[in-house]
Amino acid sequence: MIFMETIKSVKNGRVKTWQKLQTKKGRQASQTYLLDGWHLVQEAINHEGKLHALMGTTEQLAEHQEELPLGVPVFEITDEIAKKLSDLVTPQGIFAEVSLPSATREPQFIHDGAWLFLDGIQDPGNVGTMVRTADAAGFTGVVFGQGSVDPYSPKALRAMQGSQFHLVTTTGDLSQWTASFTQNGMNVYGTQLDPQAADVFTIPAQTQFALIMGNEGQGMQQELASMTTQNLYIPITGQAESLNVAVAAGVAMFALKAR
Amino acid sequence: MIFMETIKSVKNGRVKTWQKLQTKKGRQASQTYLLDGWHLVQEAINHEGKLHALMGTTEQLAEHQEELPLGVPVFEITDEIAKKLSDLVTPQGIFAEVSLPSATREPQFIHDGAWLFLDGIQDPGNVGTMVRTADAAGFTGVVFGQGSVDPYSPKALRAMQGSQFHLVTTTGDLSQWTASFTQNGMNVYGTQLDPQAADVFTIPAQTQFALIMGNEGQGMQQELASMTTQNLYIPITGQAESLNVAVAAGVAMFALKAR
Repeated sequence: MIFMETIKSVKNGRVKTWQKLQTKKGRQASQTYLLDGWHLVQEAINHEGKLHALMGTTEQLAEHQEELPLGVPVFEITDEIAKKLSDLVTPQGIFAEVSLPSATREPQFIHDGAWLFLDGIQDPGNVGTMVRTADAAGFTGVVFGQGSVDPYSPKALRAMQGSQFHLVTTTGDLSQWTASFTQNGMNVYGTQLDPQAADVFTIPAQTQFALIMGNEGQGMQQELASMTTQNLYIPITGQAESLNVAVAAGVAMFALKAR
Repeated sequence: MIFMETIKSVKNGRVKTWQKLQTKKGRQASQTYLLDGWHLVQEAINHEGKLHALMGTTEQLAEHQEELPLGVPVFEITDEIAKKLSDLVTPQGIFAEVSLPSATREPQFIHDGAWLFLDGIQDPGNVGTMVRTADAAGFTGVVFGQGSVDPYSPKALRAMQGSQFHLVTTTGDLSQWTASFTQNGMNVYGTQLDPQAADVFTIPAQTQFALIMGNEGQGMQQELASMTTQNLYIPITGQAESLNVAVAAGVAMFALKAR
């Protein structure tokens, strides 16, 4: 038997708490974030994301009742409340409140795997797409540097498609991560538009390394670029000045990661 | 001497005409589209995009006056008009009205180059990013199939970053293009999530071929998939179900195109 409570007022205290999860400040305060739509909610259920609550309209709860997990409080909400919780014009009407990853990983204890470091990425869609691509390419984890946009906004989560449940995600000081990785004998590759860097397609595919992607306009921090094993570029043969950062990350991840 | 007219009223007839270029219907009627922001306007000037008009605020026209081309009508507009012409909250304040590509290309006369076919791509950002990536990868042209979203919306153009001036863009019936290309001895590669397809990384890099990317949710049309030389997939080694279509296009284009 699933415990269920019905909420009808948009002024209900829980609704107000969930609405606050649309901002980074709200997510930091509660140490949770909100998943919007069945595909993302299902990923959380399937991968034992720490669920605090499930919220759905009458229709959505009925449609998915057999897949709802036991032991998680379920709240029946109105269409009006669903609209308050979503940044979409026509939300599907099913949500989950999930714990933010709690443990911060310590890079000095990491000796293997393929890792993506995000240095100052500003667009939530780019951040989400890069986590999804890292998952698809079989990467071990993604480290969000201090200058990168919060990856738990609704827009970033939509682009991420639940991949945060498939690999390690953590925030960290990328200088420290780069120093620890190189100390542990792992290659750390920066990316630059500079043709003084090495062509990514000349680097042998490997399994234990980190790839750094930099800010959309400015690229990587100069300090980081000077700490890497090697900096790489993607050879541009047309007249475009650069690639979209999420596309560049995809090309570089699939080029570098041994399958 | 640059011919300049000042427009102060948002109700001016020209302003109303330019506003209509925000919709596909408006663009079809005038056979022109609108570029928003100096970077895109500059691309049009540098690549001899057929300019009908340049519109800028006093500040923007002053800032770029030495780069404005002769023989194109220039209109000084107010900040308020700039906001009417842009879908951005804070537009830069400089615009160009440019001709849509006039000639439709006939595939039966094409015997070389690398071509990207877009089959039913729905997101304007994806379409724009794929044109930009095709340019960066040194592709010859992009063909927009009948089911793909119009590539001249403000959002698509922003993602495109002016790459439409660097390669051939045309609309077309992709069945016809695929038939003509294979008849002309060029490989046409479809993309599918189906592991019955061939791993894209096992295909030798080449210079004369077409790559088809399909709809974000549904993939390519089945009819097209049955007409290709071969269908390809990108090997997913993690738990993600798929890649974002613009990322997948980037990975496949750089894998297939000989440099």
